[in-house]
Amino acid sequence: MSTYAYTVPVLVRGLTILSGYMDKAAAFAAETGTDPAALIGARLAPDMLPLAGQVQRASDTAKASITRLTGLEAPSFPDTETTFPELKERIAKTIAFVETATPADFEGSDAREIDLRVVTTTGADYPALFMLPNFFFHLATAHALLRQAGVAVGKKDYLGIA
Amino acid sequence: MSTYAYTVPVLVRGLTILSGYMDKAAAFAAETGTDPAALIGARLAPDMLPLAGQVQRASDTAKASITRLTGLEAPSFPDTETTFPELKERIAKTIAFVETATPADFEGSDAREIDLRVVTTTGADYPALFMLPNFFFHLATAHALLRQAGVAVGKKDYLGIA
Repeated sequence: MSTYAYTVPVLVRGLTILSGYMDKAAAFAAETGTDPAALIGARLAPDMLPLAGQVQRASDTAKASITRLTGLEAPSFPDTETTFPELKERIAKTIAFVETATPADFEGSDAREIDLRVVTTTGADYPALFMLPNFFFHLATAHALLRQAGVAVGKKDYLGIA
Repeated sequence: MSTYAYTVPVLVRGLTILSGYMDKAAAFAAETGTDPAALIGARLAPDMLPLAGQVQRASDTAKASITRLTGLEAPSFPDTETTFPELKERIAKTIAFVETATPADFEGSDAREIDLRVVTTTGADYPALFMLPNFFFHLATAHALLRQAGVAVGKKDYLGIA
């Protein structure tokens, strides 16, 4: 298995699931008369990121990991999303960028030095020890926020097998 | 990178972080006079698993993934843990089992057929598309439960870089 196999398809799958969560959350808001902004601003703890922030950080983790491993330049997204359609567009643009990376772009990635500011690692270790835990942190936290709000998402949705 | 590299060290690292969370939670309970059982029974939503369940499912995901990929027989743990020391022992026993798997045990794992009841996949696809998302779901949810209870854990704890 190549590093590609543990990055591009995993990120695209996770981002697609996250986009589906936005649809479910928007439908929930419409059905229950909940203000979408309340869902988008919901936090698990006062000093944790709200739902919008979880989506934005999942997007950034995906983008940055591709850049770190391949050197491909990622588009910049300024974190201005405040609605479900805008969050879905952010996710779609992120998927489009991630999908530009090909297995050939990952050649030599194992030996790259990757500086995460808090720690320096190699391309060989980075996906397993940092990228995947970090990406799924934001996906699972988005899931938790929707679950706590009463949106009908379940473990099968999270795993993409619903 | 081998399948081993995306399973054994990732699981051991995540389980070690989870064990540290139990220490932080127990210390928080002692410092604040919180009943440990309240923390252990805390849920993000009424129909989600409590903290103990997140630990038990993280343990089971780790054990089962090694069995599915290598054929090594995992010990059975009956989900009877009700205290932080018992949860830490469950985690320690899980780490001990995961660490028995060697890179050689993973030879041929890519071609194994893996039946998850809900979906059948191969050893090549299983870690990236099911095991890692599922394992980090439980780790991130344990993190969320502790954060919501006021325990001082942060993103660096979750990533194991604190």
